Amino acid sequence: MPQLVLIRHGQSQWNLENRFTGWWDVDVTEKGAEEARAAGRLMRDKGLDFDIAFTSLQTRAIKTLNLALEEMQRLWLPVEKDWRLNERHYGGLTGLDKAETAAKHGDEQVHIWRRSFDIPPPPLDAGSEFDLSKDRRYAGIAIPNTESLKDTIARVLPYWESRIAPELMAGKRVIISAHGNSLRALVKHLSGIADDAITGLEIPTGQPIVYQLDDNLAEVERYYLSER
Amino acid sequence: MPQLVLIRHGQSQWNLENRFTGWWDVDVTEKGAEEARAAGRLMRDKGLDFDIAFTSLQTRAIKTLNLALEEMQRLWLPVEKDWRLNERHYGGLTGLDKAETAAKHGDEQVHIWRRSFDIPPPPLDAGSEFDLSKDRRYAGIAIPNTESLKDTIARVLPYWESRIAPELMAGKRVIISAHGNSLRALVKHLSGIADDAITGLEIPTGQPIVYQLDDNLAEVERYYLSER
Repeated sequence: MPQLVLIRHGQSQWNLENRFTGWWDVDVTEKGAEEARAAGRLMRDKGLDFDIAFTSLQTRAIKTLNLALEEMQRLWLPVEKDWRLNERHYGGLTGLDKAETAAKHGDEQVHIWRRSFDIPPPPLDAGSEFDLSKDRRYAGIAIPNTESLKDTIARVLPYWESRIAPELMAGKRVIISAHGNSLRALVKHLSGIADDAITGLEIPTGQPIVYQLDDNLAEVERYYLSER
Repeated sequence: MPQLVLIRHGQSQWNLENRFTGWWDVDVTEKGAEEARAAGRLMRDKGLDFDIAFTSLQTRAIKTLNLALEEMQRLWLPVEKDWRLNERHYGGLTGLDKAETAAKHGDEQVHIWRRSFDIPPPPLDAGSEFDLSKDRRYAGIAIPNTESLKDTIARVLPYWESRIAPELMAGKRVIISAHGNSLRALVKHLSGIADDAITGLEIPTGQPIVYQLDDNLAEVERYYLSER
């Protein structure tokens, strides 16, 4: 039975400060690093193991993966990193904290951007301090300047289909270390969650989510490893 | 001009204890981890950058790479891990410290094994505590039970030719994090060092070695980055 584990990166500095992060490359805090190590120890102690790992091009997800794999003595596993597992791009909200966003746009509008399925925030200004168009890690990629969750799903799922699903179909045990919204994209797909329900699904940091899948990679069972 | 950096992993626990390590998967010490971070800061401060990284399947080399890349804010680079960059397999000497080896085999014999080009130590006993034949990271690989430096070279160079050299020829900037003897194999090849001289070449831990290469990947210049 194909086995997949999803893990959202440990607490980042901007999770802590309650700022919209998106594609900005913020590191994990020491608490976030410890969440990652604890997840690794939990997976090891519960007897989980992997054959291949996938992650984004963002430090907080890569580091979470590395710290967890180190606890599992599995740093030697192959790891594939891809921008399509990046966090949702929050456009012009990037860098703003809760109070700043509310002051600038009003609580109601912010709630709409945060919770609607297909309404993206305003685009990031070109030349903004958070503009990544000159970051060579994204060379050759049409970097979005904002994304709705629907937009995020539209680039996560082709990557799932082309790179991750074939590994599961070939019997490999897979772990994906990624972000709140790129993981929502996968959970929506695997668990068949409706458009208007997925934006309310919270994915906690540093908590391994285990999927047992059938031969067509549909969900048989999904659970938090910490609850077993 | 193709640019290559070689780095030997930071001090490991068995470097510290002066024990033959080879393929046994010993971690770096805190000093070794700091050597790796310092190497990353040095590379960053000297303006070095990379497009792809290669390392072995051994924790001490992978961790050294990860710690250095983290200091360079380059954790997102693609990393390929391969057993052919592993340390020389020290056979039946694995796990013995200097005094134990001398007591068991005599100083002169140990010197021969350590310094000869083509005389391997006695093989590791099957079923030894250091036998890795059941370690799934090496599944499908004909794990050696001992190696001379010549044997090590014979598996490093085909990997160089098939995987690393093509990246350099394509203009990629490459870093290789590996081990004393797998790096000797590369230095011998790139710098044209004779069989009887290469075994005496010491490669210090955590010191980036920079190669400027010509279009045929022969050495134009080789230096320790710390000396520039």
